[in-house]
Amino acid sequence: EIYAFQDKGGREICLRPELTASVVRFFVSDLTTLPRPLKMFYFGQCFRYERPQAGRYREFFQFGAEIIGNATPETDAEAIGLAAAILERTGLKDYRIRVGHIGILREMLAQAGVSGDQASPILQKLDKKIYPEAEELMAQAGVDAKVAQDIISTTQVTGPISVLDSHQGPASDYIRQVCDILLAMGFGNVSVDLGVVRGLAYYTGMVFEVDAPKLGAEKQICGGGSYSLSELFGGEKVFSTGFAIGFDRTLLALQAEGVQCVRAGITVFVVPVGDSVRNKAFEIVAQLRRSGISADVDLMRRGVGKSLKYAATVPSRFAVIVGDKELESSSVTLRDMNSGEQTLIKMQDLVKELKR
Amino acid sequence: EIYAFQDKGGREICLRPELTASVVRFFVSDLTTLPRPLKMFYFGQCFRYERPQAGRYREFFQFGAEIIGNATPETDAEAIGLAAAILERTGLKDYRIRVGHIGILREMLAQAGVSGDQASPILQKLDKKIYPEAEELMAQAGVDAKVAQDIISTTQVTGPISVLDSHQGPASDYIRQVCDILLAMGFGNVSVDLGVVRGLAYYTGMVFEVDAPKLGAEKQICGGGSYSLSELFGGEKVFSTGFAIGFDRTLLALQAEGVQCVRAGITVFVVPVGDSVRNKAFEIVAQLRRSGISADVDLMRRGVGKSLKYAATVPSRFAVIVGDKELESSSVTLRDMNSGEQTLIKMQDLVKELKR
Repeated sequence: EIYAFQDKGGREICLRPELTASVVRFFVSDLTTLPRPLKMFYFGQCFRYERPQAGRYREFFQFGAEIIGNATPETDAEAIGLAAAILERTGLKDYRIRVGHIGILREMLAQAGVSGDQASPILQKLDKKIYPEAEELMAQAGVDAKVAQDIISTTQVTGPISVLDSHQGPASDYIRQVCDILLAMGFGNVSVDLGVVRGLAYYTGMVFEVDAPKLGAEKQICGGGSYSLSELFGGEKVFSTGFAIGFDRTLLALQAEGVQCVRAGITVFVVPVGDSVRNKAFEIVAQLRRSGISADVDLMRRGVGKSLKYAATVPSRFAVIVGDKELESSSVTLRDMNSGEQTLIKMQDLVKELKR
Repeated sequence: EIYAFQDKGGREICLRPELTASVVRFFVSDLTTLPRPLKMFYFGQCFRYERPQAGRYREFFQFGAEIIGNATPETDAEAIGLAAAILERTGLKDYRIRVGHIGILREMLAQAGVSGDQASPILQKLDKKIYPEAEELMAQAGVDAKVAQDIISTTQVTGPISVLDSHQGPASDYIRQVCDILLAMGFGNVSVDLGVVRGLAYYTGMVFEVDAPKLGAEKQICGGGSYSLSELFGGEKVFSTGFAIGFDRTLLALQAEGVQCVRAGITVFVVPVGDSVRNKAFEIVAQLRRSGISADVDLMRRGVGKSLKYAATVPSRFAVIVGDKELESSSVTLRDMNSGEQTLIKMQDLVKELKR
């Protein structure tokens, strides 16, 4: 349910439930003259007005991407492959991609005499696998009971790409091409699932979902497909393919797999031995940072021992200890935080040494 | 004015007006046992319910950072220096840092018998430079007219660090130390402005603002200072220093300076010469990406000529043309997009060549 309210001026407002519409609106208003395909991504909060549960909050984060320009198996495979590559880069090991095609069900419904407007509520029931209600709606739309059963059993076709052999047709050929490209790209955990319908009415062709089985019942972490929305916002009709990854649930999946976040740490922590060299320590840390070295400096006026302890927790690979005596020869002490080894080093050699 | 509303359940809700409170709440709930100082940053939307104007929208983006742990001139200088370094990295040339100290005015008001609660509304008027109303509030609080005039003229002290010579005291010494560290770090465009008061009541010591003069009247792009908030959220009192950069107005400042955003482009665009090598092109692009090379591939089923034209607009430094004949000898054609020079190259050498 959408998070809607009236603002102080009595306007009907809602907090955005998703970001694809925003991307397409931006495309229609500003980007239609750019060479295509256009590739865009987003990361942001969305909102729903529903009772919060584990991994399903009122305010949630979505990462997504859209490829705007055409409806080709290449575009669809590129979108699915990007979603898979992102999930792999998070460190997630166990995820499954299920690919379907909304056109197969739309075509079957159309042949049974069900128009586009009537089809949407039926598809929504099929998406949620509420079969009795789907059957009832199909009966109301005049679909023969045997045909209705056939449609329902089509949504239950899942498995390796070979399951398409019993469902010949252009949509099957299309899915097969998408899957072949994904295999060529090295994404092997792809299966066919003609029950992937997606809740939204704007999908036109390929649809896909990604599960993290470790999450149990609420396992879907990504969904997408090819669609056409730009005409709704006053633009020409342009086919696109996009997806959104549920950020919160992906974090839960990573947690369930025991993936650890490693703190990157810094290269060097600068420690002044006393008040007289404090400003010099800041001069040095600023120079190191301008040279592209990640560097930090004591802000707490701690002694050398305590500063080195803090540096170890950051963690920092090196410490630079700045003392009056060493500065007389334009030198500082460089300490390897792992070995504890300390060497005197000319300041002019510091950047080179730390970049080794 | 805060963007507040009632949700469908009748709850009083507001969209966040800023993010420092969120950071401090997170600190109090989860991070108090970590070694200090803690450095955190954020980037996100905030909301105000006000009439939108240029660079001042109802939904606006703030980038900010907080250093939690102590009140030292080092911490304050580090925060100001970070804000300055970020602005420099955006490409902004003309920006000015003004540093003040809320303690100077609080001390003067306290000596005139004005308590903390009474001081806040006076400071707010002084912040907005509405002097008659500030005078009226001070008169109501029993401040002698001459002292009130003295307080007002203190807020008008601006200029190089030497202007502090006529305002001796601990707060002046403190500002001088902050400015000295900033100079040591190479940030020269710092001046003193005792009129920097900041609207929020939680500031305790150093306060600063950054202007982009090219923006005219609405020129402030950053503000911050040292504060203590954690005790409001049930934590122990911990001093912190933070700032927020107004992202939208910084973009306007960059625009006013004519700073151009350069498209990074990609290293290589992969072009299949026909349908028979399309999947091979995807295999190659996936391998290049896994090797850390930014690579894209034709999704539109264009011919070679049109694909190369598109690749030039991305822009891509190289193109890899995949043809049946070349594949027979495990080779592809590598095209330098600038010179147009083409060479046959073994696929196994492609990554090495592109990483040169």
